Formats: sequence, C-alpha cells, structure tokens
Amino acid sequence: MEFAKQEYEFLSEIGLSPETPGCFVNGKWKAHGPTVSSINPVNNQKIATVVEASLEDYEEGMKACSEASKIWMELPAPKRGEVVRQIGDALREKLHHLGRLLSIEMGKILPEGIGEVQEVIDMCDFAVGLSRQLNGSVIPSERPNHMMLETWNPLGVVGVITAFNFPCAVLGWNACIALVCGNCVVWKGAPTTPLITIAITKLVSEVFERNKLPGAIFTSFCGGAEIGQAIAKDPRISLVSFTGSTKVGLMVQQTVHQRFGKCLLELSGNNAIIIMDDADIKLAVRSVLFAAVGTAGQRCTTCRRLLIHESIYQTVLDQLVDVYKQVKIGDPLEKGTLLGPLHTPESRKNFEKGIENIKSQGGKILTGGSVIESEGNFVQPTIVEISPTADIVKEELFAPVLYVMKFQTFEEAVKINNSVPQGLSSSIFTRSPENIFKWLGPHGSDTGIVNVNIPTNGAEIGGAFGGEKATGGGREAGSDSWKQYMRRSTCTINYGNELPLAQGINFG
Amino acid sequence: MEFAKQEYEFLSEIGLSPETPGCFVNGKWKAHGPTVSSINPVNNQKIATVVEASLEDYEEGMKACSEASKIWMELPAPKRGEVVRQIGDALREKLHHLGRLLSIEMGKILPEGIGEVQEVIDMCDFAVGLSRQLNGSVIPSERPNHMMLETWNPLGVVGVITAFNFPCAVLGWNACIALVCGNCVVWKGAPTTPLITIAITKLVSEVFERNKLPGAIFTSFCGGAEIGQAIAKDPRISLVSFTGSTKVGLMVQQTVHQRFGKCLLELSGNNAIIIMDDADIKLAVRSVLFAAVGTAGQRCTTCRRLLIHESIYQTVLDQLVDVYKQVKIGDPLEKGTLLGPLHTPESRKNFEKGIENIKSQGGKILTGGSVIESEGNFVQPTIVEISPTADIVKEELFAPVLYVMKFQTFEEAVKINNSVPQGLSSSIFTRSPENIFKWLGPHGSDTGIVNVNIPTNGAEIGGAFGGEKATGGGREAGSDSWKQYMRRSTCTINYGNELPLAQGINFG
Amino acid sequence: MEFAKQEYEFLSEIGLSPETPGCFVNGKWKAHGPTVSSINPVNNQKIATVVEASLEDYEEGMKACSEASKIWMELPAPKRGEVVRQIGDALREKLHHLGRLLSIEMGKILPEGIGEVQEVIDMCDFAVGLSRQLNGSVIPSERPNHMMLETWNPLGVVGVITAFNFPCAVLGWNACIALVCGNCVVWKGAPTTPLITIAITKLVSEVFERNKLPGAIFTSFCGGAEIGQAIAKDPRISLVSFTGSTKVGLMVQQTVHQRFGKCLLELSGNNAIIIMDDADIKLAVRSVLFAAVGTAGQRCTTCRRLLIHESIYQTVLDQLVDVYKQVKIGDPLEKGTLLGPLHTPESRKNFEKGIENIKSQGGKILTGGSVIESEGNFVQPTIVEISPTADIVKEELFAPVLYVMKFQTFEEAVKINNSVPQGLSSSIFTRSPENIFKWLGPHGSDTGIVNVNIPTNGAEIGGAFGGEKATGGGREAGSDSWKQYMRRSTCTINYGNELPLAQGINFG
Amino acid sequence: MEFAKQEYEFLSEIGLSPETPGCFVNGKWKAHGPTVSSINPVNNQKIATVVEASLEDYEEGMKACSEASKIWMELPAPKRGEVVRQIGDALREKLHHLGRLLSIEMGKILPEGIGEVQEVIDMCDFAVGLSRQLNGSVIPSERPNHMMLETWNPLGVVGVITAFNFPCAVLGWNACIALVCGNCVVWKGAPTTPLITIAITKLVSEVFERNKLPGAIFTSFCGGAEIGQAIAKDPRISLVSFTGSTKVGLMVQQTVHQRFGKCLLELSGNNAIIIMDDADIKLAVRSVLFAAVGTAGQRCTTCRRLLIHESIYQTVLDQLVDVYKQVKIGDPLEKGTLLGPLHTPESRKNFEKGIENIKSQGGKILTGGSVIESEGNFVQPTIVEISPTADIVKEELFAPVLYVMKFQTFEEAVKINNSVPQGLSSSIFTRSPENIFKWLGPHGSDTGIVNVNIPTNGAEIGGAFGGEKATGGGREAGSDSWKQYMRRSTCTINYGNELPLAQGINFG
Repeated sequence: MEFAKQEYEFLSEIGLSPETPGCFVNGKWKAHGPTVSSINPVNNQKIATVVEASLEDYEEGMKACSEASKIWMELPAPKRGEVVRQIGDALREKLHHLGRLLSIEMGKILPEGIGEVQEVIDMCDFAVGLSRQLNGSVIPSERPNHMMLETWNPLGVVGVITAFNFPCAVLGWNACIALVCGNCVVWKGAPTTPLITIAITKLVSEVFERNKLPGAIFTSFCGGAEIGQAIAKDPRISLVSFTGSTKVGLMVQQTVHQRFGKCLLELSGNNAIIIMDDADIKLAVRSVLFAAVGTAGQRCTTCRRLLIHESIYQTVLDQLVDVYKQVKIGDPLEKGTLLGPLHTPESRKNFEKGIENIKSQGGKILTGGSVIESEGNFVQPTIVEISPTADIVKEELFAPVLYVMKFQTFEEAVKINNSVPQGLSSSIFTRSPENIFKWLGPHGSDTGIVNVNIPTNGAEIGGAFGGEKATGGGREAGSDSWKQYMRRSTCTINYGNELPLAQGINFG
Repeated sequence: MEFAKQEYEFLSEIGLSPETPGCFVNGKWKAHGPTVSSINPVNNQKIATVVEASLEDYEEGMKACSEASKIWMELPAPKRGEVVRQIGDALREKLHHLGRLLSIEMGKILPEGIGEVQEVIDMCDFAVGLSRQLNGSVIPSERPNHMMLETWNPLGVVGVITAFNFPCAVLGWNACIALVCGNCVVWKGAPTTPLITIAITKLVSEVFERNKLPGAIFTSFCGGAEIGQAIAKDPRISLVSFTGSTKVGLMVQQTVHQRFGKCLLELSGNNAIIIMDDADIKLAVRSVLFAAVGTAGQRCTTCRRLLIHESIYQTVLDQLVDVYKQVKIGDPLEKGTLLGPLHTPESRKNFEKGIENIKSQGGKILTGGSVIESEGNFVQPTIVEISPTADIVKEELFAPVLYVMKFQTFEEAVKINNSVPQGLSSSIFTRSPENIFKWLGPHGSDTGIVNVNIPTNGAEIGGAFGGEKATGGGREAGSDSWKQYMRRSTCTINYGNELPLAQGINFG
Repeated sequence: MEFAKQEYEFLSEIGLSPETPGCFVNGKWKAHGPTVSSINPVNNQKIATVVEASLEDYEEGMKACSEASKIWMELPAPKRGEVVRQIGDALREKLHHLGRLLSIEMGKILPEGIGEVQEVIDMCDFAVGLSRQLNGSVIPSERPNHMMLETWNPLGVVGVITAFNFPCAVLGWNACIALVCGNCVVWKGAPTTPLITIAITKLVSEVFERNKLPGAIFTSFCGGAEIGQAIAKDPRISLVSFTGSTKVGLMVQQTVHQRFGKCLLELSGNNAIIIMDDADIKLAVRSVLFAAVGTAGQRCTTCRRLLIHESIYQTVLDQLVDVYKQVKIGDPLEKGTLLGPLHTPESRKNFEKGIENIKSQGGKILTGGSVIESEGNFVQPTIVEISPTADIVKEELFAPVLYVMKFQTFEEAVKINNSVPQGLSSSIFTRSPENIFKWLGPHGSDTGIVNVNIPTNGAEIGGAFGGEKATGGGREAGSDSWKQYMRRSTCTINYGNELPLAQGINFG
Repeated sequence: MEFAKQEYEFLSEIGLSPETPGCFVNGKWKAHGPTVSSINPVNNQKIATVVEASLEDYEEGMKACSEASKIWMELPAPKRGEVVRQIGDALREKLHHLGRLLSIEMGKILPEGIGEVQEVIDMCDFAVGLSRQLNGSVIPSERPNHMMLETWNPLGVVGVITAFNFPCAVLGWNACIALVCGNCVVWKGAPTTPLITIAITKLVSEVFERNKLPGAIFTSFCGGAEIGQAIAKDPRISLVSFTGSTKVGLMVQQTVHQRFGKCLLELSGNNAIIIMDDADIKLAVRSVLFAAVGTAGQRCTTCRRLLIHESIYQTVLDQLVDVYKQVKIGDPLEKGTLLGPLHTPESRKNFEKGIENIKSQGGKILTGGSVIESEGNFVQPTIVEISPTADIVKEELFAPVLYVMKFQTFEEAVKINNSVPQGLSSSIFTRSPENIFKWLGPHGSDTGIVNVNIPTNGAEIGGAFGGEKATGGGREAGSDSWKQYMRRSTCTINYGNELPLAQGINFG
C-alpha cells in the first residue's frame, strides 16, 4: 500500500505506513479499537489511517508494563541514562523527518516542528546527566549512632497523557525524566496526532530492543477519552502526568486521587505580556507577534492578553497591527510561513464562536477576526481591544486572538496580569531594574513562568515548566521536577545498641 | 473566676482562664460560636470552657489575615526568621507548663507532652536558619545575554488544620516554615484541644505584638467542621495543610482543588515493624512497646502491625506479652506511667468496636482487649494475632492495638508491609547490610518514613515527615518541605537587545 | 583593683578586669607570656593589661583541645547546634556592652561596634539551623546492589587567626560554623584587641561549662606572631582560617600546606565602586561615604577606588568632597561621630607615609590628606585624584583614603576594576539592566563580592564572604562555606555478593 | 613513512603517524622542542617518535588560548555542553582503537585501557547534563528591595597536567567539566604517553573545528618539567589541576599560589583494605587482587596495605598467595593477562630498590619480590608481611607490592589506616552495620574515598574523586567538583531607592 500523496512517502523512513496499528503493547504493535484517520489541517485530507487501542489492548499493555517495571527499576540509574542517551541519538538521526511530520499532522510551521523534536533530544541529553544526580541526602541525626538519609526510589509506572499542540515535546519532558528515574512509561498521545505518537514510539522501542530490554518499558496507545480514563483509574499507574484543559484536568485529578495516586497537571494558560513605558518597543512588538501568533495561538504559553502602558498604547498598537497584516499565512512547510492552519475544523469553529462572544462582550476587533475560506482550518491573526474584566478574557481561547488593554501604573498592570484563574506564564518589557525585580518578587506576577523582555513562551528545558492556580501546579523538564517521578523516603538507621528517642523523650 | 481544680491554676501562667474566647481575630480575642468544654480524659471532667468561632468570626479573621499578608510577605525573610526565633524563646520559657497542659487536655504522658512542645521549639530554631536559605537558583541559559532564575515567593495565607493527637507539634511543623516563607497562618486546632490552641496562640501573638506587627499574621480559631470547611473553600487561602483521616482528607483535597488551591495532606498511617531472624530482639521489643503503646496508640506513626520472622516468632511474642503486662497505666502526669487514657469516650468506644471486629475476623487476643473501668477513657494495651489479609488490618484503629503476623522471607515481609492502602512509616530490625539497603531500595518499603532498628515513630525535624498513598503525599518539617509553602517561578531575563529563541527556533 | 577610668567599669560586667590572663587553656584562664596593654585609640591610653600566651600555654591548650575534639565530634550535630544557640543568647544579653568595648578598644563607632556583635549573634542563629542541614548526598550508583554516599565529617581542630579590624565578627563567621560542624576551635585574636578576645571567650566558655562540656572545645590565646606560627605549623590543626594581609597569608598558607593542612584565607582587598552615567548619584555618594570612611577605612571591604563616568565626574566629585567635609570626626562612642581614630599610632604613620607616596606618584589631594593633631590616632578622610595605573593604587592602604578616577565606557571601568591583584569586593551604580547583568557575568567584575547600587561592604551572612586572587579564595559565613570546615568522603557500599566494576571493566 | 610494526597500523585511524609534532597550538599541529620516542613497555621498543613543545610553542599556544577564552566563556553553557557531547561521540566511535593504544603505550591490560576511555566518554555525557545545571543561588536578603545572588562564572583558562598511569581519564575528569564551565583547557600529558595525548587532542580538535570554534580552546602540549613549570607560573592560567607525586605537587602548589592562582591537586595515595573477621572472604580476596595487582599497582588508588583481622589472618593470606600465584603476567593485549609490565625501566628499578628497602626494614616477602627477566618491564606481583610502623609503609611504592598486617580490633584497624600521610582511598570488608557506619563516621577512615566491600579503586564518575592530607585535597569528576572550575560571586542588587545596611547598622 502506498501513502495518499507522494509528499508523505518520507514517513516510511520513520516507520510509518498508510495503515498502522496504534498500540505498542508488550513490545508488539497491535490494536483492536476503532480505525481513525490522521488528517492534514492544511486541507483536511487524510494522511494515513490508524487503529486505536481497545480496552483489551490497554489491559494487555498495562499488565506487561507493570511487570517490566520490576526489571527496569532494578537497573542502576546511570544504565537507564545510557538507554535514554541512545533514544536521543535515534531522534537526532531523524530530526528533520520528525519535524516535517509535526508540521503535516499538527499544523505548526516547520521551524517549530523541528524545534519541538529538538526539545525532546535536549531532554534526553539532560536526563542522561541527571541519571547520575538523582541525589538523596545524608542528614545529620540528633541521635548518636544514627544515620539519617533521604532516599529517592522509582514510582513504578508513569502515565503520560499529552495534547495535540505539543504532541512530542511534552512526552519528552515526562518520559525522559520518568525513565531515568526508573519508571516505565505508558503514553496516550492526542487522538488527532496518532502518527507522531507511533513514529516516536517506534524509534524509542528500537532502542529498548537493541539493549535487550522489555519493550513494555515504554508502552503507548493511540486512543481517546476511554483510554485516558482507564489510565486515570488504574492503580498500577502511580503518577499520571496530564496535559490539557483545566476542566478535564480536574476530573483526572479527582479520579487519580480517589485511588491514592499522584497527579502532575499542565492545564490551561492565559498569559499576559506587559509593555511598560520604558520598554524597547521594537523588541516587545516582535515578541508579542511570536507569542500570540506562533503555533497559531495554540501554545499553552501563547500570549492572549497584552497590557500596554497608556503613554505608548497607540504607538505599540499601530506597530503591532502593522506587523499582523504582514504575517504570511499558509502551508506550514513553506518557507516564510508564520501562521499555519488551526489544528481541526472544530478549532476553527471555536474561533468563530469566540469572536462572536468577544463582540457581544464589548470587544472591538482591531485586525483579523475572520476565518479564511479554504480547504484547511485557516483563520486570521486577530487583535481585540477589550476590558480586562470581560468574562471572555478570563478564558483560554485556543486560537491566535490577542486581547489588548491599557494600564497606568506597574501595580495596576500586575493586578490585571494576576486577575485570571490561570497562572502559567507572563512577561514584562521594561528597562527599569526596579520593575524587573518587583515583577519577580512577592507582589509581582503570580505565574509559574515569569519573563522579562522575552515572550511568554519558549521556555528552556533547564528550568521547571508549569504554572500555578488553574494551570495545575505541576512542573516538568528541569530543576527538581524529577522529584515528582520518584517517591521520597526519610530513613533513619540505628547502628548502635541503644534506643535514644528524638526530642529527648524518655519512654519507659 | 477560678479553675475547677487547684491543679489547673498553673494554666493562668500561660494565659488561660476558666472561660476563654477561642478565636484570635485581627489581633484580638473574641468568639461568637458555641461554648464548649475542654475535658480531661483521665476523668472526663471539665478543665475550662471555651467559646468557639462563628462564621462571622472566621470572616473577620480572614479579612484581616489576608490584609496582613501584604505586610508580612514584604518583610525580608531573615527578619521573619527573627520573629520566629522569638516565638521559640517564648515557648522555651513555658516549656513545662505547656507540656503539662498537653498531658491534661490530650492525655499523653508528661515526657511526651514536653517532647511535643520541644519539637515546636526545635522547629522554630530550624526555621530561623532556613530564613536565610530559602534559596532559588541561577540556571545557565542557552541564550546569550539571558539570565535564568528560579525564584520562590510567599503564597499569601496558609491554613493549618490540626488533629488532637499532636495538638501543637503539627502546628509547629507548618507554622514555623509557613511564617519564615512569608505566609500568614490561619490555624484551626482540634475541637477537643482548645486550650492548647489558645495557649500557643497567646504566646505567639505576644511576640508579634512586641515586634509591632499585625496580630492577624497569626490568626487562630477553635472550632469544628464548619470552620474546617470554610478554610477548605476559601480562595484567600492558597495552601491548606490538613492532618486527619484519609476520608476527611480526600474531601478537603477535592474542595481545595476545585478552587485551584494547594493541599498538604498528612492522613492515616498503618505502620508495620518487621523483625528479622538476625535482629537484636531486646532492642526490637523495646521499640515495639514504644511504637505501639506510646501515646496510647494514637500517633499517626503508631506501630499497628508487627511482622515477626517465623524462627523467632514465639520468642519475640513471649517477651512482648511480658512487657505489655508490666505497662503502667494511669494518670499521664504521674511519673512512671507509660499508658494514659484514650482521648475521648468515643475513642474508647471505637476501641471496643474494633476488638469486636477483630474477633469476628479471626483475630486472637494475646493480651489486653478490654476497656478499663474508670472515670477516664482507659483501655488495655492489646496484642492480636491475625492474618495479614484480614480486612481490619488494612484500616487504622486509633488505639493501642497491635496485630502480629509471621513471615518466612524478607521479600514476603516487605510484601505484607506494602499491602495496605496507607504509606506513612515502617521499620525493620535486622543486622544484615543486605536487608538494610534492600529495605531502603526500589523493592523495599513503600512508606514515606523507612526506619532501621528504631521504632516507626519519633521522627526528627531535620528530615521530611509524611507518607505516600492514602497517607496523602505531603511532607512537613525538614528537607525541602518549605517549597510547598512557596510558589516557584522560572524566570528568564533578557538583558540584551536581541531575541534568540530556545531550541534554536527561527521565527519571522 | 580598679579600671583606670570610671567609664571602663562596665567591662567588669562582661568578665573583664584591669589585669587579666589572656589564655583560655583546658577550661582555665592562665597565661605566662609577656604582659601587654590594651590601648584606647582615642587617646592612646591604657584600658587594661593582659598577659599573653607563652608557647607552653599554647602546648597545654592544644593538647587539651585536641583531646576534647574526640568528644565534641561525637556529639550529634543538632546537639552542637543547641550549644551554639546558647552562645548566641549569651552574646545577645551583652550586646551593648560588647559593642561598647569594640568601640573603645578597636576604635570603630558605636553603631558599627554593636553591628559587629550582632553579626556574631546572627551567625549563631544561622549555624543552629545549619546543624540539621550539614547534608551529604545519596548518589545513584552505576552498579547493582551498591549505594554511593557523599558524607561530611568534622576535621578535628580549626585554628582561627583574626585581625584587629573585625575582632569578633570574623571569629563568629568561623567559630559558629566550625563548632556545629563538629570541630574544636583554637582562636588567636589580634594582639591589639585582647579585651575583646577575652570577653568573647568568657561568654562562650560559660556556655560550654553550663552544658558540662570540656572548656577546651573553645581554646583561645592572646598573643602575636609566635602563637600564629605555632598554629600554622601544628599538625593537630587541620584547618587554619587566617584573616590578614596577603603577604602574611601566603606565608601561613605555605607553612600549613607543608604539613598537609588546609587553609582558609581572607586577605587584602582593594575594592572599587563604579558610578555609571545613569546612576542614582545621591545614593551613590552616600554609599561611597560609608564604603570609604566607615571604620576609618580599615575594613577589608573598604572602598579604596572610585571610578566615575566622565560625564558626571565633576558633579559626583563635588558632592563627595562636600559630604567629606561634613564628616564628624571624634570619639566613636559619641552620637553622630562618623569617623573615629585609626587603630594604632603605627596606622597613623602608615597613613602619612601613604600620602607621601601618593603625592610622589602624581596623586592630587582633593580633600583631607593630613593627620589630626590630638592624643589619638585621628586622620582626615581623604580623596585623591590619581591614575589607575599608579603603583600605589594596586596596594591596600589601610586608612580612609579614596582614589578617584575617570572612565568612558562600561568595559573600561570593568577593566580598571579588575586590574589590581586583589579580588574581594566591588560595586556598580547604574540603572541599566544590561550593565547590571554584564557586571555579574563572565566579562564583569572578577571579585568575590559583586554589588549593585550598594557599597562594597556590608555583606549579609547568608551569602559566602570572601574574594579571589590575592584575597586568598576562602569563603566564610553562609552558602556552602561550611564544607571547608568538614572533610568529604565519597563512599561506595556493596551490599550484594558480587563484584561488578565501574566503567564495565572485567578483571580476572 | 610507516609504523615500525604492522600491529601499530591501526594508529593511523586515530590520527597518529610514525613521526608527529606534539603540540596543538592555536588550532595547528606543530612543535619545536626535543624529539622523543614513545616506547612500548612490553619490549621497550619504539612505537613512534614525537616532537615535544618548546617554550616558544608554549607561548604561542597560551596566547591563542587566552584569547580564545573570551569567545568560549561567552557561549552559553548549554551550547558548550553540546560541543562536549560531540566530543563524547567522537571518542565513542574510536573507543577500541584508543583503548588499544592505552595498552600499547601505557602498558595496562586491554579491558582497563578500554575502561579508561569509557570513563572519558561517561564524563562527556555527565558534563552535558551539567551544562544546564551549573546553578548559582538566589538567597533571601535581610534588606527590603535587595536581591542576593550567588553566581558562578568561568575562570578563563584551566591547566591540566596529567600522569602516565591514567593518561586520558584524568584529562577527561578535568577537561569535560572545565569546558562546560566555560574555560579553555591547556593540557600537558605525561612525557611518556605522548601518543595518547596526541590522539585524544586530535579527536577533540576536530569537534571544535566542525563547530567553527577556535581550536585554541583546547590547547595541548607533549613535554616535560619545563612546560609543567611554565604552566605553574603562568598568570593567564587561573587554575592548575595537577596529578602526580606529593613532592612535585607541593612545588606546583607553591608556585601557583605565589601568583594568586588556584590549584587542584591529586597526589599520592597509600590505600588500605581492612578485612574484618565477619567479612565475605572470597569477595575480599578477589577485591584485593584487583586493587593491588590491577594496572600493575600503578593506580593512585592501588591497595598498598592490607589489614587483616588476626582471627582470619592466615586463611586470607593463604588464599591470597594462592591467587597471586595464578596471576597471568604478559602482554596486556592478550586475553586473560591480568598483569602487564610496569610503565618504564625506571619503574622496574624503583621496584627493585623498594624490595631492598622492604627487606632492610624487616619486611618478609611472602610471594613475588623479583623482576622478571624479559625485554619488557615485568615484575612479580608481591606480598610482603611487615610492621605498620615501618618507614616504607608510609610511602607510595608505585608497583604491585602489597603490605599485609594483622590487627585485633576495629579501632586499631582504623588507626593503622589513618596513620599514613596520604589520604586517598580505603576500604573495609565486613558484614556488620555498626562497623560500616562507624567506618563512614567521624572516628572512621580519614580518606577521600571510603569504601565498603569493594576495592579501594574503581570510583564512579558521579561521586567526587580525590583525597585528603598529602593527597592534596582536590576533587574531580562528579558531585560539586565543578565549582573548583568556576569563580563564585556573592552579589547583592539594590533595586530600591534607599540604603539600608546589613546587621541593622545606622551610618550617618
């Protein structure tokens, strides 16, 4: 069988075929659930078909995965690191093919597609180093002949549920860390990006095979809510890392907590950029463009609210509208394209509904505001002038729609920034040290990512990624995020012959 | 007015009187809720009466507290540490009076009462040092002219809901850390230990007053479920630290999460001690006695399950039954008493119900098993031989009842240890390095506290206290527990004039 | 016997008398060396007489100290912390008396005297917290059934040789940390500040006595170079912490290294302040005044070089000369005095010699430049305009003499800043984030303390204090300075039955 | 031109030729010093000739290196990490060739040769992760509107002087870390292993070239003492990492300190293994064999002293003598060989001299003790019974000579272990937790590496490698060793408008 179009032929070089089973279960590819199509958002035509997981597939996979975890957690961490290093090398070899697949199936422009795969590779390299640094502590004991330790052990199995907008980076953040920490990984990719899920899984699984390790260590499923719920409920999965909307995230969290599991949530963002009167306006405008239009406004870190100091409000707005009008919209694979299609026809509909709501809530469209007639899911990059208190401003509209607002003082700007339920990212543009450090301080931004003179997005993997409040509180990638993937024990060893008690208690 | 008995007169030296309002609200003592009695569990007679908080008191207190948090979080951390140091000194001065009050109102023996207050003092001293070490990180950025920081800021207000069994230590674990981290504290003590709540609050509030700081920084309420629910629901309280049963804890967690707050849970324990055939039996028996009978079996770290290697099963059991029979039961203030009363008549009833269930599930009472006829809530320290798979063994019976079981291999013992929903503490007695380190490792104990040759209890404050699974996952006191009381931001500052993107992405 | 003047009577309240033996040896006060006078630099008259240590005293003291170290290092660290906490409280009680003594014997103004004692108290509080955080690491091993630890153990005995300018703060930085780390301390104070050495030692020794611990844990000697050399040569002293000139420091270092000991050096500083054209000039001028005139220019962090951007050169200079002329010179105990006497007549002579050299090397005196005729060692605060390449600018003249220089660019200013052999402290005044972060970066200041918009001095104890290059490289007080007071071991424990080798080597 | 023997032809595949210039200077291969031969210790015949560096070559190289450091230190650390990753890959590709070269030129057996190269590769992987974790700290300031940071910046140029016994691993420990830390590296390999120096440099330099970075970032010299002294004296080299004898190390240290540089010393070891009466004797004997005979006793971690509990003394000795007699001596490339030749004829002479001294000091040869007549530098593996107080036992005889001694108690064994000037490594074999933890504690072993149930050697890179006392105190490879390759600054930024002083001082 052949791919529908010749331009998809390269997919065979990363292990894909026109019809593929979508589960990697106990080291084998199979699937008995519904057959779905992977669709190119540029034209809403099929790229290939994939068979999703049935609950039986899931059970078979989880049984093997759970079993494999006993082997994997016994392997010394640096040996696990070596396997992850090889995964990085396998991805590096196919970087451009994978980036291209991301553009075709998700719709992001090619440089972003390649950048996303690069991020997984970076995570692998980072995790290799980490595999010798998952350090516990030796803590001084108050009792003679006692040694106190804090140790970290694997959890067992980590479930990773990812979303369409970063179909492989988020897997990378979680799986690279989870694996070196000694956990098996169960991955459910987004229902609309099955080819990416399969392609990544193929490369990963080959590495395990080459190392004569059970394929079940990395188990993956194409599938929808049914499989997601199975993961949430499954007591064999100690930690569920979920990326998606606040609404679904809260449900997952509650299910997981009922069975005494752990959750790592990366939920909705609603990110603001503040431009102070002393900002480098050129830098700010360029940053806003990337932050609001990049990935067609479908990043969790997309800038959705722009707060401009009143004294430069019109200047900034004029420049911004100007650059918006020059944004090249089109095929994400084409050089020069800045704005590709939204991911699905449904997303485009949401955009339309959103624009209606905006208007009914007093929003004024400064540029854009319409869908673009075509086979694909294209919409115009949109700027809206609106009150910070409008209801719609508190929500995450997953499209390239930017709300602009005016403020008079730093304090007012911070207040608006912090006034939404979500708390993922935020950014200020200023040249004043006082503003910079107050922005970072107790009365500054309340988000998990707090930037200065850069956009709200583009986090580096060395830091911890995640947000507060309705964003869910989880942290992925760097810093001490790895601790979430392990269980901590406070250990006290008495190696003497007596039994002194803490706090000097005398008992009996 | 005078105290009912002369032996309570010393209470006036720690600020208590026979009738006291039970809320410290906006720096003032007041209360408009129901009047309750503080009862001495030795004789079930009144010590004093206390007026609990009404919801109006709560609202007034929280408004002031929330307001005060703006001031407190701006005070540099080392200055906050100095205030906490003074709190420690204030407690130190009243150590013996407070310890005595603990014995009278809670029922624990005097050395344990004093030890508990000492633990709060230790926490103060520890927190002072911490006030200069709430360190964030400077992380190397992959972009030129960019600086990446991880910073930690106060959350605002931290709610602390404590239980009767450690009516002040748990407050100390939370409040000392929360305060140096820059948070105001709202405390709801256990409904049955209001005098301790009031006495501690008085000492703390005097320190704030002396430092000319708003009393509302430390707000406290005597009260029950109504106030507890108000705290859980209150969006002004960023973190709720809850100590209590798994059942209530899950409800609190869900309520807090619905409003996007954070939870720190210290829930039920069901802790086992394993005695290997190569153990120091004398040390082990003494440890089990303290672990199972101490605080009348009402510690969250109480040993409830004793796993004995078959080859020494009878020897250990004989010795244990022997020491159980010598346990001096009586007034906790009396020298030599090892076992005081249960905290309430209801606890005693639960004990009786528990014994019935044990019998109906095949448990065999080896010693004890009865309540002791008296004015107080005394019961016999009890040893039960039972199967590890009996339902009741999976639950936490809050009384001095110890289940003993036999095992053949280390692996079997660990499996039994890990077979309950709870995951707080566990301990092994052995002289083999192989057993010790396997016990600490990935296939060892799955609890948060993992001991060797000491009891399941008596944690030092330098380590993190808390447990996994149904125990809730929170960590209090030492290690990096403080991070839960702060919000983390990953900050990137561009101090150059260009806009390089992470992962080498080229946009526009 | 009585003190020479009534104003010295308060000294008896901190344990001093008109004639005192200057060694605390094996828990007893004695001394058989030369008798010396403690002199008040305000009038060069005797305060009291002190008998210094003989080499026999030294040997007796060290023998006892070395013996005591076996006991002290076995005490659990948190217990040692409790002792240090009590030392802090003892000092707190005598804060004002001690501060007053510092002013009288060293010559610094009273607020600085009290501030210096406060710093020791702060160090005690900090060290208490540290006593539960002297953490080693549990490191993942690449071999199965192996545990890798990094542990920290006491060194044994730490020698502390301090200088006259901070006669007790530097002791505090070292001794508080050394003690909680489990080391005994041997202190040789400056020969010209024996009363402070004795007063501090008395308070400390009383705490050890109260805790029934050997007095020899803290052994102290009044004495000069002979005792200093004895410390440097003594193989029983694992670490010598030396504060003083680069010249003497290098000699100490070489002696200590010959016997395989460790050194912690805090040597000369030669600190610059840079004022950029966008600086807050008022803030800068006030800072320079404190940095250059405070402690009569006898701090190691005293600002000795002032680099002013050419565009504001004259403005700053005019303001500075103006404030210099208003500096109140006089008795350090008097309210309002900013500049007390130099410490000794010899210091005054050095000042005079320095001024001559300055003139002969082309320096132009803008204000000051003379000694003040009086009984005491008073000199004028002095500003000198001079080329950055003059030889004398590379040296540390321990007096209130400030060299001012002009620059054109940030890069030029940094180059001048880094052009001296010393590398202790430096500061920039600017409002530009770019300047701030470049100043902190690889091409910025090369000193150990790098400030922005504050003077070169006034370090907080939470950070590490010390400098690079000729300043000696040691770090005291906060951060991980404590590691220098302990020995590190990398430990690997094999708890299995096999012998896998690292790097996968197969041997035999 | 061709290699002398066909078996050396593979060297051309790692960039070597029969005659090679031995300096990599400013990105080019050249050399104007003396011509030397690389000798195969198996037969003392020439492998190839190399031209060493002249002082002019050195100066040219250092000038370029110093210049290149400005570029390299500006590259963001994660970018530097990517370069080091590529170095690791380049070595991985040539692992077996390089391992073979090590065997031929240094004389170690092939598995050890390959293991050593593997260690450099492991270091590269580790350093990549580290490049995103060279973290400074954000420290709470006691002053409002102040931010305190601890930052780490590159030193500039790091000199690495390595020894013949680990001709590439030690370079790897230093260079991988130094490079990611932002330093250029100047390497002087051992005079007798020039081919390894050249081969490694070639691979490294190709990576820099591929990345379009100045070759001078990694500058390397074949040469002897003259070049070593030039490095020690050169003020452009901020840190000199020296591996070699204590005697030379002290001289280097003094020279470097005179010019205010830093030293990292890895000097002599004199390592003991203790076998307690409860040890696993089989494991112990196998470990001693590897520890004492491996690398022909020329590791710095070689076990030179064996302390056996008297109760098992004869048993252990009998087994040990037995395995010694079975050691296969011969060509290190041959499968099964455990003992290759000593590195040089001079080493063999030293062995002979050592044996004489041993005899004259009362040592009794139990097995071995003679050189083996052959073309190469072979000697017999030797066991000597001798008193722990004999002078020769305090020295490091760099040959496979093991001193055995008897002891009665744990304390006595530790005392003997600690009685030598050196403090690198030590190991105990025991099954008692009490012994294990005491061995790790304040009264245990005083060496930098403290092992249990494994040999004295075979350190993993995740821990810090190095020793105390005459071993020099430096630490390489893992843990926080990287801090030695950077300069630390304590930074305080005032972003407000006021000037509060630390310790609450009020000035003017």
